[in-house]
Amino acid sequence: MAKTIQVWFDFASTYSYPAALRATQLATANHISLHWRPFMLGVILKQQGWNDSPFNLYPPKGRYMWRDMERLCAAQGIPFHKPTQFPRNGLLAGRIACLKQTAPWITAFIQAVCRANFVHDQDIADTTVIGEILHQLNVDSEGVIAHALSEESKQKFRDQTGQAVELGIFGSPTFMIGDEMFWGGDRLAEAIDFAMRRYP
Amino acid sequence: MAKTIQVWFDFASTYSYPAALRATQLATANHISLHWRPFMLGVILKQQGWNDSPFNLYPPKGRYMWRDMERLCAAQGIPFHKPTQFPRNGLLAGRIACLKQTAPWITAFIQAVCRANFVHDQDIADTTVIGEILHQLNVDSEGVIAHALSEESKQKFRDQTGQAVELGIFGSPTFMIGDEMFWGGDRLAEAIDFAMRRYP
Repeated sequence: MAKTIQVWFDFASTYSYPAALRATQLATANHISLHWRPFMLGVILKQQGWNDSPFNLYPPKGRYMWRDMERLCAAQGIPFHKPTQFPRNGLLAGRIACLKQTAPWITAFIQAVCRANFVHDQDIADTTVIGEILHQLNVDSEGVIAHALSEESKQKFRDQTGQAVELGIFGSPTFMIGDEMFWGGDRLAEAIDFAMRRYP
Repeated sequence: MAKTIQVWFDFASTYSYPAALRATQLATANHISLHWRPFMLGVILKQQGWNDSPFNLYPPKGRYMWRDMERLCAAQGIPFHKPTQFPRNGLLAGRIACLKQTAPWITAFIQAVCRANFVHDQDIADTTVIGEILHQLNVDSEGVIAHALSEESKQKFRDQTGQAVELGIFGSPTFMIGDEMFWGGDRLAEAIDFAMRRYP
């Protein structure tokens, strides 16, 4: 059986940026396939009574998170600049990633969107920004964006978010190996270990 | 300058149990002093609008936490049994630890209270349970408990909780090295590294 980890994430989530890069490295090194599963974290936070990111609602938690991100990215050797807007609307990028989650360019797309938001301070809700990322990947950007804005695509993303709720997912990133859940980039090494033992 | 990490914690907090044991091990190995600073997490959670543990308020998060605790304690090689009551009222134990935070028996006391709650499923709000722990440590249990129940002791614990709020602490355990904050047992290694670099 193929070693697979499902990576559930939302593009708005800060911690998903270093985790996405590191997950790709560790999965490659351990011959594990990653199945990227974007979902709408905002829908789940709203069910917990939050109408904004908890990092905005609780300033001490927010201040800590930004400092923690700085340290985390420095330790991981990747650039980071605090975006001027947080959270950014990741709906368009999420719909594209949901629609194209098995495309050969999906990992590169996810990393580029994360970098646009958390390194280059670009608005990832802007079709021009996303279009340019797709174009750089030699993907038909107009066709993909038009498809992402279709009712079929919106419904697919809603359905995938519903699956996240059913799985009991409550944060981003979340790694799933079968029914086993690991929440947060801090649990990535444990998720990899678990996958290696599950699929020897 | 002495290498010191302040460990801010609440006895009710599940993750503080493995973190307290591991912090003691790693601090000893690295010649770092731990300064235990108990505080009332409930007061801070209430300021965030929570009247109960978020692990109770959000069942998916709670289910995950118990599974994560099982895995975490197994990986750390320490026993764990899910308590029949959560969270337990850690006020008495917290007041004692606040009052006696520099006593030579403080680390042993903290570890014993954590074990009572998370291994032996004992009610740590019970003066008999706490009295027995103090007695085992050859401490005048009646005297310490009477002191802990005094107005002076209650005020000291409230003041220390006020300091936690001023520092921007929002969860347990939190490691502080000067102004630098590390939240959660997951950041213990980073906190140790930071202390080693801060005090070479």
